[in-house]
Amino acid sequence: MPDISQLSINTATVRGRYRLDEILAAVARHGIPAVSPWRDQIAELGLAETARRIRDLGLKVSGLCRGGMFPANDRGGFESNLDDNRRAADEAAELNADCLVLVVGGLPEGSKDLAGARSQVRDGIAALQDYATPLGVKLAIEPLHPMYCADRAVVNTMAQALDICDEIGGEVGVACDVYHVWWDPDLERQIARAGKARLHAFHICDWLRVTKDLLLDRGMMGDGVIDIAQVRGWVEAQGYDGFHECEIFSAQDWWTRDIDEVLKTVIERHRAC
Amino acid sequence: MPDISQLSINTATVRGRYRLDEILAAVARHGIPAVSPWRDQIAELGLAETARRIRDLGLKVSGLCRGGMFPANDRGGFESNLDDNRRAADEAAELNADCLVLVVGGLPEGSKDLAGARSQVRDGIAALQDYATPLGVKLAIEPLHPMYCADRAVVNTMAQALDICDEIGGEVGVACDVYHVWWDPDLERQIARAGKARLHAFHICDWLRVTKDLLLDRGMMGDGVIDIAQVRGWVEAQGYDGFHECEIFSAQDWWTRDIDEVLKTVIERHRAC
Repeated sequence: MPDISQLSINTATVRGRYRLDEILAAVARHGIPAVSPWRDQIAELGLAETARRIRDLGLKVSGLCRGGMFPANDRGGFESNLDDNRRAADEAAELNADCLVLVVGGLPEGSKDLAGARSQVRDGIAALQDYATPLGVKLAIEPLHPMYCADRAVVNTMAQALDICDEIGGEVGVACDVYHVWWDPDLERQIARAGKARLHAFHICDWLRVTKDLLLDRGMMGDGVIDIAQVRGWVEAQGYDGFHECEIFSAQDWWTRDIDEVLKTVIERHRAC
Repeated sequence: MPDISQLSINTATVRGRYRLDEILAAVARHGIPAVSPWRDQIAELGLAETARRIRDLGLKVSGLCRGGMFPANDRGGFESNLDDNRRAADEAAELNADCLVLVVGGLPEGSKDLAGARSQVRDGIAALQDYATPLGVKLAIEPLHPMYCADRAVVNTMAQALDICDEIGGEVGVACDVYHVWWDPDLERQIARAGKARLHAFHICDWLRVTKDLLLDRGMMGDGVIDIAQVRGWVEAQGYDGFHECEIFSAQDWWTRDIDEVLKTVIERHRAC
């Protein structure tokens, strides 16, 4: 039997055909100990009901996806975004999630002010932490691949995320997703800089050599070019012993498949890397 | 009349419907002083014929696209790639190009050895420079956007390109293309680090907020999110006074249009940014 005691399933991996209640049941059925659910799926099932099912199935929550999306064109928009993040922190507390994952947001519509958006992100995370810390919720800044800089996240490297952590202090850390950071020549050094205390999450999937879509064409571990074992080694060298969360957006392939087939494959491939 | 004395047209911008001889004639007809042709187009027209037409039309060559593609799975493959680069340097000399642009190459097919590929790139550029310098050909390493790391270029930031320049020494420098580097939080500092002596080329186009294809959906200046004027300011602060080379891969939009419309638009948008 492969050791899956550190495996977690990000529910986006099987969201193509399945509802959250079906996903939770399937994850438990396969003996996988943890999930990372998305807020829209939670809203559909209901927060209390989601928490109850997760508890009844004995699952852990490796992270809540997601907070962030801070930058706005005006103060009102920013405050409204921050407010939504406070609700996300409440949900993370209710679900006893290891962290609240932050996809920080891209440029506001029509804006070219990258420095301004980055400054809003820093301010937003600082304000959110003031709210989240008393709830016992740790924030995990997820640097997103630079190809998402315009529309999803203006934080694009581990170094940049850690600069924000340095500036804000407290328990804020990073979510290291191999898909977003595998190309970074500075990755090993930045993982060491993060250290165990700030490595709040480790996400796995693969980068397909021929990638057909910027968002929805991630690969299953082993099908692409990322040396996942190497990155995992760097993370573990820091003492990271949290979950390996499998997160695959794959509209044309994995999202079309049967959930048992997907989860079986994740278990096999997780072992191999 | 807008000042187009620093404008150059990368011939890929209008390659969808036109041959190189037609492109050269159109560029000259619009009073644009320079071009940057691609080697496959040159091969089709013939090197001597291309050089003759460029000379007769009074055009300058802001760069030759492209050398690079160094990494291979074995020594023979690497040597053969290096040999092809020496032919590219010969062509750059024949065309009196300001530089030979290097798209350094991605991971060899089937490989996950990113560090190994990067090491091959460094060795390849060092060996190529030994050949190119006596020909009077300057090499320009073009960091490509991290989304091309698997299949096109394992050099993905200005910092990384400049590390190679530092290591190799001599006249090797960088090609700064806003499309590839606009997201980089370290960009201004790295442009300053490059300095005038190592800024061999400056390429412009735009990043569309909604990008539908990883390779062939670049935007016309002004249609996207890049603050081109800001990056241009950083480059000019170093004393850069070379060409602004417009390079747009746009299979579904600009490549389908009439060449006079495209060039007129480039001239207008170049002025605006």
